Amino acid sequence: MPLHDRVLMGPGPSNPYPEVMQALARPMLGHLDPEFLALLDETCDRLRQVFRTDNPLTLPISGTGSAGMEAAFVNVVGPGDVVVVGVNGLFGERMCDVATRCGAEVVRVDEEWGRAIEPSRLLDAHPSPKVIAVVHAETSTGVRNDVEQLGAGKGDALLLIDCVTSLGGIPVEVDAWRVDVAYSGTQKCLGVPPGLAPLTVSDRARERFVERPRSWYFDLGMIGDYVGPARRYHHTAPVSMVYALHAGLGVLLDEGLEASWDRHERCGSTLQEGLEKLGLALTAQVGHRLPQLTTVWLPTGVDEAAARRRLLTDYGIEVGAGVGPFAGRGWRIGCMGHTARPRNVSLLLRALEEVLAA
Amino acid sequence: MPLHDRVLMGPGPSNPYPEVMQALARPMLGHLDPEFLALLDETCDRLRQVFRTDNPLTLPISGTGSAGMEAAFVNVVGPGDVVVVGVNGLFGERMCDVATRCGAEVVRVDEEWGRAIEPSRLLDAHPSPKVIAVVHAETSTGVRNDVEQLGAGKGDALLLIDCVTSLGGIPVEVDAWRVDVAYSGTQKCLGVPPGLAPLTVSDRARERFVERPRSWYFDLGMIGDYVGPARRYHHTAPVSMVYALHAGLGVLLDEGLEASWDRHERCGSTLQEGLEKLGLALTAQVGHRLPQLTTVWLPTGVDEAAARRRLLTDYGIEVGAGVGPFAGRGWRIGCMGHTARPRNVSLLLRALEEVLAA
Repeated sequence: MPLHDRVLMGPGPSNPYPEVMQALARPMLGHLDPEFLALLDETCDRLRQVFRTDNPLTLPISGTGSAGMEAAFVNVVGPGDVVVVGVNGLFGERMCDVATRCGAEVVRVDEEWGRAIEPSRLLDAHPSPKVIAVVHAETSTGVRNDVEQLGAGKGDALLLIDCVTSLGGIPVEVDAWRVDVAYSGTQKCLGVPPGLAPLTVSDRARERFVERPRSWYFDLGMIGDYVGPARRYHHTAPVSMVYALHAGLGVLLDEGLEASWDRHERCGSTLQEGLEKLGLALTAQVGHRLPQLTTVWLPTGVDEAAARRRLLTDYGIEVGAGVGPFAGRGWRIGCMGHTARPRNVSLLLRALEEVLAA
Repeated sequence: MPLHDRVLMGPGPSNPYPEVMQALARPMLGHLDPEFLALLDETCDRLRQVFRTDNPLTLPISGTGSAGMEAAFVNVVGPGDVVVVGVNGLFGERMCDVATRCGAEVVRVDEEWGRAIEPSRLLDAHPSPKVIAVVHAETSTGVRNDVEQLGAGKGDALLLIDCVTSLGGIPVEVDAWRVDVAYSGTQKCLGVPPGLAPLTVSDRARERFVERPRSWYFDLGMIGDYVGPARRYHHTAPVSMVYALHAGLGVLLDEGLEASWDRHERCGSTLQEGLEKLGLALTAQVGHRLPQLTTVWLPTGVDEAAARRRLLTDYGIEVGAGVGPFAGRGWRIGCMGHTARPRNVSLLLRALEEVLAA
């Protein structure tokens, strides 16, 4: 079977950086080899820089972004704990599901899909929640929810945010925003294959960890004992994926975080203007649109699945189907990580023009 | 920093097959791309062949071997369920911990580390357990526990086994032995980097899944809806690691399962005889020794950490420290997957002779 190299403009995975693909092929080391442990330490240091935090407990969870979500919740949420969750998309819904399985009393703050959640609604939803949780960049809708005001107003609550699609693409300031728990995924704006979930936890949150969380695999006390100086074996680290993340973070930090945010912003603006010129209406609320993930309505009469398939088979470009209220009528177009380059924006706009004219 | 290519003779990871390293570099595909889904289907088919099962629910869990353990327990064990667990090593202990976090009433059947558990003791431990669980190949001790008699005598119980170190290295017969849930890891006898946990579940066990398991990430009902014909998105598959597993299983099936078992057996026998000739006593019970993982006592007076470090730095060979009662006095020497070749056995025996003479 021939191999195809797609231009990955869906909601993730994005195209990995060439340096990352090289790193995957690096010879295997044992998970307790001093060389691997040095590389793991450096990876955690790089993650701190990217999360903009000094949190000692900052590491890659051995699973995909959703594993990061589960690790985040299961360590701070126990039976009966009140958790306020903002829900304006698929991943807010998922947070409710995960928190419920931890035994939480979930207080939902719903907003229409495609609109941002007003921070004051989250802050006012309950007088004394243990956790306030929200998705920073909703991959299902292309909407950015404001986080900074939540940190300022959280009081005794822990602030838990999903940065799967935001980290590396738009500003994420864990310490400055007073975020307590944040997790991400490797396959979006970090330009690394899917398989790891970067995660960071404040000392304040660590002091409030539940005793013996419901998950052994995601027990951050035990994982921290392997990643930290104790080096106590917990589970075998996914060595090749750590190589890949290490390399991807190196590319990002060499470019500079601000430069990466600028690049995503420029690509996103060009793409969004171009799509509107083609007659496609953007679905996300003005002022809260993610540059790295654009959501559009397709023109009436266009068979979305057929058009999407044509982009894939004739041009080798993947875009994502809409979900929820956008299913069958909208698309999600990612421009993240190594994919976020002008040439890909130009290619997609031209290809889309041809497909819509056909 | 220079790259080192170790000879990995610890308890895992082993050296991946060259074909696997190549597959890691395969261009990224989306997790819903028809080409990726075809490759995932083929991977599941190959897993069925390697597990010797027709179970439709056979797939790689997106985490390391311990994620497989958690996925196995969390879907069949709910609060109050009685689980009989055989404990003669670290991974039996871990099973108790994981089952307890699922809310189980755990009935332990302990045996000395280094000895196998008599199957009748597991069958007689409780009149009506929901699950009987045991580690097939104890990575901490190098001991094989018998499984076949458990399947024959399990009655209404579900039989759950850990095949992390056995799969591909010694016979594992899921259907013939009437095993209900089995999981493994990629980084042992499959010759693939760590990061995925092959898992298979009988229809009988599926019918007895707990409702809404405590873990969202490991919810096999939902994962099955993505891997199966529904193709419903659950989490983003770790694409590169699935490429690697697909390739590793291809190498194994091209060689033939029986041929792979023979190769592991021959390497293990030669290694164990050679070690005894060097004056190192084997620690595992005769008749239950794993060929792929050999445990030895070091001669009195040898500084185990120094000798192990010398093997690593002077020869580039990794062997594993002993754990539990063997810590500081014993080693674990793996000969698994692509590592299981005569040249590595010869190299280690010669290098060890030199190190012990020094």
